Amino acid sequence: MNKLFVVKIGGNIIDDEIKLSSFLKAFASIEGKKILIHGGGKLATRVAEAMGIQQRMVDGRRITDAETLKVVTMVYAGAINKNIVAQLQANGCNAIGLSGADANVMQAHKRPLKNGIDYGFVGDIDTVNATFIDALLQQNITVVLSPITHNAEGVLLNTNADTIAQETAKGMSELYHVQLVYSFEKEGVLLDVNDDNSVITTITKEYYQELKTPLQGMGAKIFAGMIPKLDNAFAALENGVEKVIIGKAEKLKELLHGNAGTTIIK
Amino acid sequence: MNKLFVVKIGGNIIDDEIKLSSFLKAFASIEGKKILIHGGGKLATRVAEAMGIQQRMVDGRRITDAETLKVVTMVYAGAINKNIVAQLQANGCNAIGLSGADANVMQAHKRPLKNGIDYGFVGDIDTVNATFIDALLQQNITVVLSPITHNAEGVLLNTNADTIAQETAKGMSELYHVQLVYSFEKEGVLLDVNDDNSVITTITKEYYQELKTPLQGMGAKIFAGMIPKLDNAFAALENGVEKVIIGKAEKLKELLHGNAGTTIIK
Repeated sequence: MNKLFVVKIGGNIIDDEIKLSSFLKAFASIEGKKILIHGGGKLATRVAEAMGIQQRMVDGRRITDAETLKVVTMVYAGAINKNIVAQLQANGCNAIGLSGADANVMQAHKRPLKNGIDYGFVGDIDTVNATFIDALLQQNITVVLSPITHNAEGVLLNTNADTIAQETAKGMSELYHVQLVYSFEKEGVLLDVNDDNSVITTITKEYYQELKTPLQGMGAKIFAGMIPKLDNAFAALENGVEKVIIGKAEKLKELLHGNAGTTIIK
Repeated sequence: MNKLFVVKIGGNIIDDEIKLSSFLKAFASIEGKKILIHGGGKLATRVAEAMGIQQRMVDGRRITDAETLKVVTMVYAGAINKNIVAQLQANGCNAIGLSGADANVMQAHKRPLKNGIDYGFVGDIDTVNATFIDALLQQNITVVLSPITHNAEGVLLNTNADTIAQETAKGMSELYHVQLVYSFEKEGVLLDVNDDNSVITTITKEYYQELKTPLQGMGAKIFAGMIPKLDNAFAALENGVEKVIIGKAEKLKELLHGNAGTTIIK
């Protein structure tokens, strides 16, 4: 099996034109097969505000009503996705930008009520069309996925980009040795959230249990915000993904070579 | 060579949710290979207005400044394209929505100044990637093209959808027997613009010359607005396209069977 990099790029980088451009240059130069998954950034909020569409957040999550769905579809699948693809082309990387509806790449269902909260047009992924994605990769085309899926009944759904990255990595691991990279604004998983030099180089399952265990009179050793990301990482590893790497977008090359960030293995 | 339908759907249909939905149902049921090209409709103007972006028109053409380019990219390549693709999927038609940047499907250059007018980020098409489009068609995937191209240097360009349809039809005619269908709100090419029953069934090149020739003391026999469309149609026929059909979107089936609209042949 060949190697495949599945790279997720976070919203903070997308919001910064210069950082995004230098990230895409580095991404374009990765040799071999690769998939890029992008989040949304603040543009959707700015467009919604400009259009007078009220944004409702519950526990840090956007409630996606019908009008907001239109905005995120425009911004994620249109503005951000096509801008990224055009820049990759300019860097000599033949890329194609897709939503989940395109060639039925990612099918999802509308999330059921959770604790009485209706998240609106939010999708939980059911299937990833690994066969079609592979057909593109075989043509040396890099796939760029936007966080919009569909339910196969004509409804588009707003979907968490971290989850899309994880599901794509899992789906592709039947065909490739997959390395899943979460690139964002931090150096990696930090032992001390206030110290950028405290990056944990490697986390195994055993070590993760230790890190999560609260110390007497103190919280867990690692920043609570990292726990969902790490839980996702281990879920990916349990499902065939070879390695998960978390680290700074600006250091993409070093991340891939294991010279920066945090590597998570079984 | 196999048959291929290249169908362009006009803005007025896209603006009407019910008409669009019934058009897409009819389009989905076309047997064999097909490509859909969509225009923009009024949504881009509505979004631009809502966002306070001034729209400047010269001779009925939108001047695409940097802010307007963002809006049309969002609306055409995002909202409209993904909505169409999701609806086709719901109708059992496996579709993929692309801009010209995706897999370098349509490369263009920024239009040079014309009579001192700078149209802004408007693209004139240089190449259509027929090989890649064909690879999708071979997988029984229907291609849905939005009127956004790129210049291969990272710049997206707003591009006339009629021209995209024509260039796509020409490009694909090396591989297929192509029929190009312009579907819009009118019954076809009318002898009397005020009489929907005056549809001209067939126009040959010879007859077109006659239709274009102004009668003594009167204008040309056909509506002047149709002339650019017909000039485009004959240009397509000169470049390998087999047949061009112009007619009402609601009658797509009849158009394809030659039972409605105007058929243009060499």
